[in-house]
Amino acid sequence: RLSGLRCFSSAARPDDPLFPRKDDFPSRHIGPRDRDIVTMLDLLGYKSLDELTDNAVPKRISLNRPLEIEEPTNEYDLINRIRKVAERNQIWRSYIGMGYHNCCVPHTIMRNIFENPGWTTQYTPYQAELAQGRLEGLLNYQTMVSELTGLEVANASLLDEGTAAAEALSLCFRQNKRRKMLISDKIHPQTVSVVETRLKSLGLNMEIVNVMEADFSNHDIAGVLFQYPDTEGNVLDFSTVAENAHNNGTLVCCATDLLSLTLLRPPSEFGVDIAVGTSQRFGVPLGYGGPHAGFFACKQSLVRLMPGRMIGVTRDAAGRDAYRLALQTREQHIRRDKATSNICTAQALLANMSAMYAVYHGPQGLKDIATKVHNLTLVLKHGLTKDGNKITNDLFFDTLRIEPKIELDEVKARAQEKQINVRYFDDGAVGVSLDETTRVEDLNDLFYIFGGAQKAEDLINDPNGMRDGSIPRSEFNRTSPYLTHPVFNSHHSETRIVRYMKVLENKDLSLVHSMIPLGSCTMKLNSTTEMMPCSFKHFTDIHPFAPLDQSLGYQQLFAELERDLCAITGYDRISFQPNSGAQGEYAGLRAIQNYHEAKGDKHRDVCLIPVSAHGTNPASAQMAGMRVEAVKVRQDGSIDMEDLKMKADKFKNRLSCLMITYPSTFGVFEETVADVCEIIHKNGGQVYLDGANMNAQVGLCRPGDYGSDVSHLNLHKTFCIPHGGGGPGMGPIGVKSHLAPFLPGHPVVNPLGANSNSNYEVVSAAPFGSSAILPISWAYIKMMGPRGLRKATQVAILNANYMSKRLDSHYNTLFKGPTSKLVAHEFIIDIRDLKKTANIEAVDIAKRLMDYGFHAPTMSWPVAGTLMIEPTESEDKQELDKFCDALISIREEIKEIEEGKMDIRINPLKMAPHTQEVVINSTWERPYTREKAAFPIHFIIPETKIWPTVSRIDDIYGDKHLVCTCPPILPEYDY
Amino acid sequence: RLSGLRCFSSAARPDDPLFPRKDDFPSRHIGPRDRDIVTMLDLLGYKSLDELTDNAVPKRISLNRPLEIEEPTNEYDLINRIRKVAERNQIWRSYIGMGYHNCCVPHTIMRNIFENPGWTTQYTPYQAELAQGRLEGLLNYQTMVSELTGLEVANASLLDEGTAAAEALSLCFRQNKRRKMLISDKIHPQTVSVVETRLKSLGLNMEIVNVMEADFSNHDIAGVLFQYPDTEGNVLDFSTVAENAHNNGTLVCCATDLLSLTLLRPPSEFGVDIAVGTSQRFGVPLGYGGPHAGFFACKQSLVRLMPGRMIGVTRDAAGRDAYRLALQTREQHIRRDKATSNICTAQALLANMSAMYAVYHGPQGLKDIATKVHNLTLVLKHGLTKDGNKITNDLFFDTLRIEPKIELDEVKARAQEKQINVRYFDDGAVGVSLDETTRVEDLNDLFYIFGGAQKAEDLINDPNGMRDGSIPRSEFNRTSPYLTHPVFNSHHSETRIVRYMKVLENKDLSLVHSMIPLGSCTMKLNSTTEMMPCSFKHFTDIHPFAPLDQSLGYQQLFAELERDLCAITGYDRISFQPNSGAQGEYAGLRAIQNYHEAKGDKHRDVCLIPVSAHGTNPASAQMAGMRVEAVKVRQDGSIDMEDLKMKADKFKNRLSCLMITYPSTFGVFEETVADVCEIIHKNGGQVYLDGANMNAQVGLCRPGDYGSDVSHLNLHKTFCIPHGGGGPGMGPIGVKSHLAPFLPGHPVVNPLGANSNSNYEVVSAAPFGSSAILPISWAYIKMMGPRGLRKATQVAILNANYMSKRLDSHYNTLFKGPTSKLVAHEFIIDIRDLKKTANIEAVDIAKRLMDYGFHAPTMSWPVAGTLMIEPTESEDKQELDKFCDALISIREEIKEIEEGKMDIRINPLKMAPHTQEVVINSTWERPYTREKAAFPIHFIIPETKIWPTVSRIDDIYGDKHLVCTCPPILPEYDY
Ligand SMILES: Cc1ncc(COP(=O)(O)O)c(C=O)c1O
Ligand SMILES: Cc1ncc(COP(=O)(O)O)c(C=O)c1O
Ligand SMILES: O=C([O-])O
Repeated sequence: RLSGLRCFSSAARPDDPLFPRKDDFPSRHIGPRDRDIVTMLDLLGYKSLDELTDNAVPKRISLNRPLEIEEPTNEYDLINRIRKVAERNQIWRSYIGMGYHNCCVPHTIMRNIFENPGWTTQYTPYQAELAQGRLEGLLNYQTMVSELTGLEVANASLLDEGTAAAEALSLCFRQNKRRKMLISDKIHPQTVSVVETRLKSLGLNMEIVNVMEADFSNHDIAGVLFQYPDTEGNVLDFSTVAENAHNNGTLVCCATDLLSLTLLRPPSEFGVDIAVGTSQRFGVPLGYGGPHAGFFACKQSLVRLMPGRMIGVTRDAAGRDAYRLALQTREQHIRRDKATSNICTAQALLANMSAMYAVYHGPQGLKDIATKVHNLTLVLKHGLTKDGNKITNDLFFDTLRIEPKIELDEVKARAQEKQINVRYFDDGAVGVSLDETTRVEDLNDLFYIFGGAQKAEDLINDPNGMRDGSIPRSEFNRTSPYLTHPVFNSHHSETRIVRYMKVLENKDLSLVHSMIPLGSCTMKLNSTTEMMPCSFKHFTDIHPFAPLDQSLGYQQLFAELERDLCAITGYDRISFQPNSGAQGEYAGLRAIQNYHEAKGDKHRDVCLIPVSAHGTNPASAQMAGMRVEAVKVRQDGSIDMEDLKMKADKFKNRLSCLMITYPSTFGVFEETVADVCEIIHKNGGQVYLDGANMNAQVGLCRPGDYGSDVSHLNLHKTFCIPHGGGGPGMGPIGVKSHLAPFLPGHPVVNPLGANSNSNYEVVSAAPFGSSAILPISWAYIKMMGPRGLRKATQVAILNANYMSKRLDSHYNTLFKGPTSKLVAHEFIIDIRDLKKTANIEAVDIAKRLMDYGFHAPTMSWPVAGTLMIEPTESEDKQELDKFCDALISIREEIKEIEEGKMDIRINPLKMAPHTQEVVINSTWERPYTREKAAFPIHFIIPETKIWPTVSRIDDIYGDKHLVCTCPPILPEYDY
Repeated sequence: RLSGLRCFSSAARPDDPLFPRKDDFPSRHIGPRDRDIVTMLDLLGYKSLDELTDNAVPKRISLNRPLEIEEPTNEYDLINRIRKVAERNQIWRSYIGMGYHNCCVPHTIMRNIFENPGWTTQYTPYQAELAQGRLEGLLNYQTMVSELTGLEVANASLLDEGTAAAEALSLCFRQNKRRKMLISDKIHPQTVSVVETRLKSLGLNMEIVNVMEADFSNHDIAGVLFQYPDTEGNVLDFSTVAENAHNNGTLVCCATDLLSLTLLRPPSEFGVDIAVGTSQRFGVPLGYGGPHAGFFACKQSLVRLMPGRMIGVTRDAAGRDAYRLALQTREQHIRRDKATSNICTAQALLANMSAMYAVYHGPQGLKDIATKVHNLTLVLKHGLTKDGNKITNDLFFDTLRIEPKIELDEVKARAQEKQINVRYFDDGAVGVSLDETTRVEDLNDLFYIFGGAQKAEDLINDPNGMRDGSIPRSEFNRTSPYLTHPVFNSHHSETRIVRYMKVLENKDLSLVHSMIPLGSCTMKLNSTTEMMPCSFKHFTDIHPFAPLDQSLGYQQLFAELERDLCAITGYDRISFQPNSGAQGEYAGLRAIQNYHEAKGDKHRDVCLIPVSAHGTNPASAQMAGMRVEAVKVRQDGSIDMEDLKMKADKFKNRLSCLMITYPSTFGVFEETVADVCEIIHKNGGQVYLDGANMNAQVGLCRPGDYGSDVSHLNLHKTFCIPHGGGGPGMGPIGVKSHLAPFLPGHPVVNPLGANSNSNYEVVSAAPFGSSAILPISWAYIKMMGPRGLRKATQVAILNANYMSKRLDSHYNTLFKGPTSKLVAHEFIIDIRDLKKTANIEAVDIAKRLMDYGFHAPTMSWPVAGTLMIEPTESEDKQELDKFCDALISIREEIKEIEEGKMDIRINPLKMAPHTQEVVINSTWERPYTREKAAFPIHFIIPETKIWPTVSRIDDIYGDKHLVCTCPPILPEYDY
């Protein structure tokens, strides 16, 4: 008790009679109360959580000691502590630009979207009927991107500008199969690096050139990529380049800036096929590099090759417009290594924020912002020129490249004095980018830095001051309209935008309503305390390329989180650069490839992947330049050891690695996992362990201990980053020390330290990925402590087994541990027989669950025709029981069909989900009642009913009649 | 342009071609776009807003010059600026106690209630069918207060502990008509002062005594008030006092502390009739004094005399349990000067936060918190005693009175050194109160301050250390259960509490859904930027009795807001002490009375009040010790000048003042207002101008200019503090300089400054009222600037006139300006005829409006059988049109009844509102369709439908069968 007892800290024993522990964080995070845990264990026949998990987890891999992480901190101390960490970051004014700009995040959007669990806690909108709000927001995003770039279609976000550019060029290759790319020499350096890494992995060639002089006549160039305005700020005319390219079968890709496009002729007007970029400056904080949404737009003709999620308009069973994910057949979860990309988690929440920013400002508001930025830049040029500096830009939007009159060191000293960051080019030139937050008087500091003494207040009254370089006076002046849809022209008062955000929020089911038992997704509590630091100014307002000595708070956060994640996984180093799980896979596989290469094993390119693997695995392996070979799984879901041995042997000389998910995607702790790793190692391969299922392992076993070499950790699953309706996420990778030299680097700020391997590869635009959400995972670990984390894992396993048991006599759990007869933290129920007995499929149960107030489990993955349920530790017994009751009640409904008591076509399942429109209708000609349709079980009552806003989505219709921007509005729609 | 052009600032002209104004705050706050304003003016026949308001506002009182307030600040600068102001407050650790304690505000409650417009923007739940969420929260509050105090009934909050105590003693007087009160000499000083002021106003006597020795045998004592535990921390046995009192017909009142009652025998067990206090320490920040909820509980037998709002259970038209405001016949809006109090706005939001804190912790959690606080206090006593200090407490909960061993100056110096505030008694003793946030190691600082060197870490292991003074070992140990209802025993994980808060939020209509056109309530935008500073640590974490040199930020805020409010109203000084409009009335009337008294006019006690006045006016006048005389109003709603002159003359020698609302409660700018003021002044009276309708005046005319002497300003109306479902509010008063010496003072921290009149009266427990919400009004004024504020007023007037015009041929607007034919910012539609033609009353239209997605206008006030509509400037044309369309459509529905096409009993109005339960029912036997019931107009569609969760409330049943605590739960209810 002497050792630093803190009030509320769980260091005080709960049973301490004198200073009883006020609820500590683990008891807020973990759903079931201790008395419920006893009841649940009882049902399963175990006496304690330890007994349960000792049985569930194979002895051979069990950790058997506490995690070496700190004792838990309570919620109140945590906030004080993280605030101190944050305040070690210094917030200087940034004119660095390079794809990251200060902007004014509308407070009402920050509070009502980013800080609102009703917006942050949804998964990717696989169940469209209960996600029309999010989907509408994302459709607005696509419309905005499409109209500003002038291209017909856009996706619902990618991870950042760098990867979007890489995806663009990969698309070119997929389209015309040529293996050479041309990249302009005036592109942001991080974009170049990400593209370079990706193309190299795919074995494609790239050349960095002055695209104005590019020669396409050899017909061997797949695509050309340039930037508009370019990294030095120049607005150039690419129409000839585009024409030449097209004439020779080359696709034309353009990185661009959405704000500039409110003034500039859009890339479509000079023939661009694909436009990419970031929408960060549309109302998303800098956040030291992320999360922000990358965008991707292309011509209609390329849509089926487009990477990432796309929202489309379709119709529902009632024949009305409805939104849903379109053309999913392009994606990794269906096409695997043939997919258009490995994107799974993207940046949905940030795309929604950016779209809402455009909705709030409207076309004129955006244009006003751009005009101000541009005119200030004109004034800046005028003043700097007057002072004798040389500006190398003729036509520009917001960025100047300055050759200073005075010594560079003097410029640097003055910038330091004013606490201003600018961009320093290698050749001694200086870059300055202005933004939405720049004021007239700020220009005076810039004049000072460059040794001058102009007064901006005078210059703005000088009629000549704003001529030189002006876009509106040039032939680049935009004349085509944009954002004409009513949604962008209605919600301009705060009252209106608040109501619009609320309407969208309330259409969607999220964790604020009920459990989302999506197997493999780990939809656990995202607590307010974890989220709060993400709004701290000292975390939000720092540029990713600010010098490292200004980001000491972030560096501390990274170091502490790395230490904790290593303790949890058994790895030696962590890279925070990958900003999604799939990105982590790619980064990890590249580390493996580079490791082999460094050892002279360049030929090792075979990646063994069990057929049960998540689609991102083969898709990432393909992107990493590997050849995917499938490994069979047995009837019981475990890896077919014979097949594995056979394949490992067969590809012995070419074996790069195995990708394996543990516990398996079938929800089982395979007892052979250590053997599997041994076999791979013996054959010269490395083991990539997909960390998506870490929630079954934390505190119980560690991949680094039982043979894995590298894993990504979906921080947005096990480590509490909310899913945001499809991102943001973070997929840092942990590696054993031999792979550490091959972790990602960065061309601007090297996350590995100055004296690291300079031969780095780069997977994200930002050095540390989406840094700004790392406080969430940091806080979770700090508040849970070693015992709390272990208990969370144990309860996650308990919850899954409890549900499996409760459902036992109604649904068959497909896979269990062969000896333990236990599942891990998730389980699959088999419903394939129902197709025969009642013509019922997984989708029918999924949709009917909506009527019962629940989000469906993961549907038909990893086994077609099944449902995979993952409750997580945050759901309590009552919620689990309700969900089981719902499934059991649905089974009864199916029985009625089986027994011929209910029509086989018109029944509550086939007709599900039921909307208000359907049940509040004078006409009702169904063989079941309205009440049965809408309130099928005692706990579904009007006062808490969650209504699907559309009837069942018609996916096929939507894919046939593709519409991916805002549809013409319905007359009754509320604009 | 030279003078400090700031980006986004409206200093840049909107039409500036070079630096176009990005939307400034006024364009976010004001709903209609400029193009809509033109259309609306057109309909009314005006060319400009100026022309409109020049006609609406009588020339004689028109301001005719810009307000002398600062140019507007944009939203982003505002936050930086207020942060700097806040940071001038110093946050020391506080052990002052005295009714204000540090506590851990659960972050999830802070974010999801206090920072969530879905919880903050509702009005008092007059329309219960769309407010069941808030009502359930408040019923939880009442249950919590009732069970912890052991008394049968509790109300839904009062303004603070001081006023609650005053209300308790006023109740005693109302009950037994005796005019003498006994007050314990061990009560918090601010409670004594507030009680003293109130009793003095009522002409009642009070004596401060040692209640243990009180003699009640004269049968002249109305009530006795003591505190348990008392202000010095002692827990005393009052059972003999209570018995003596009761034996002699005296009522027994007890101020108490909810947290202590989790361990202590409740007051009910020693015979207390009324218990009062504050629930601040249940999860509400200190906020430099407020807002917090005061509580009031009493025996069932006194319920009809109880002050304030009370929630009760009743049944709805479908016969199911439902909540609503109970026993409204006690209240000012019905009983006027005979009411049980003048309470209108209370502290609903804070009561909801405290109730949610209890729901989150549950009985055991609360008891654990109390146990820890108590045991630490035991350790503190043990250590301080060992060190040679004298502790004068035998039995105590969390507070000690210490006679230090060392010099008091040394104690003070050491406290200063450690940045710790304690309480200094006049006699040299020192008070220390511990709280939820105190840690074991904090005790060491306290030992140090008192010159000792004990180590708390050692003491807590000393078995003797926690004996002396222990409640559980005493006969005061609580044995009776509390908070046994499932609602307090279910929501203990964060996932659960978040869902519970969301369920309640989603039952209620608030400004996030649609306009709330409550006349006289001014439901305008409460913007995020205004709300953000209320969560700043430097505003939330400071004790109201911290020395003034620690609250420089607050002092600056008060000074700036005072300056601005004076500029807006024409007054000379402002007092921020009154924490509601009604409280402001009382404070203003007391200033008037004290002014008369100081001039020797003690006999002036007549208060003239037009019959059209708000109920709080006569109720406050009665409380202030005045005799209310009604003044007639004419057919057209204006004051009957003849009657006024007659009454002014008749009471000439006794005339204290006139209370008048301007524009009148009938929504008209009376042209005679300046004359009215003159008449009153000529007869020796003062003018109290009720400022509730300031939203029609800001920037156009100023009460201080046209003859008023004093006004309260409902900052929760015109100045953007959200209503929180019935509070918090702020009702500061502005006075002309002659009344300034009579503004409220305070016994602990004098808001008037050290050398002010010491003969102050005190109206609130905290020196500056609910300081923590003043940043909202400050921010509003700073962001709007002089032109923005004026335009807001103009648009408020435009909106009202536009609606009146649009409704013209359907509903008659009862009152308009006689010359202008214009209404002010609100208007009354007359529907009394419909009773005859269709048996339709105001309530039917109000309830039917719910089916149309709208909150009803103010019903039957100020004229019975009418509806008063106030749109405010924040609602845009589209919303006004929808509301008008709804009313017009309802008029068509009435026409069907009039024409005999629809049944006179069973029709959409009489049956309104329609719930899901009713329309989603196999049985439907009504002469109209389900669709007509639920979706009566094109813009009411399923995806945005707001459902009432109960059918029409049966008020009479509820008042007959009064149930004011959580009812037994329904089997299907979700716990
Ligand atoms: C097993 C598995 N691996 C990889 C991923 C990909 O992670 P992300 O969505 O973060 O890219 C997922 C995501 O659901 C997964 O379930
Ligand atoms: C005209 C008028 N006066 C006074 C008040 C009382 O104000 P409060 O509710 O803040 O006590 C109101 C409240 O609605 C009012 O409308
Ligand atoms: O709340 C009102 O009584 O206006």
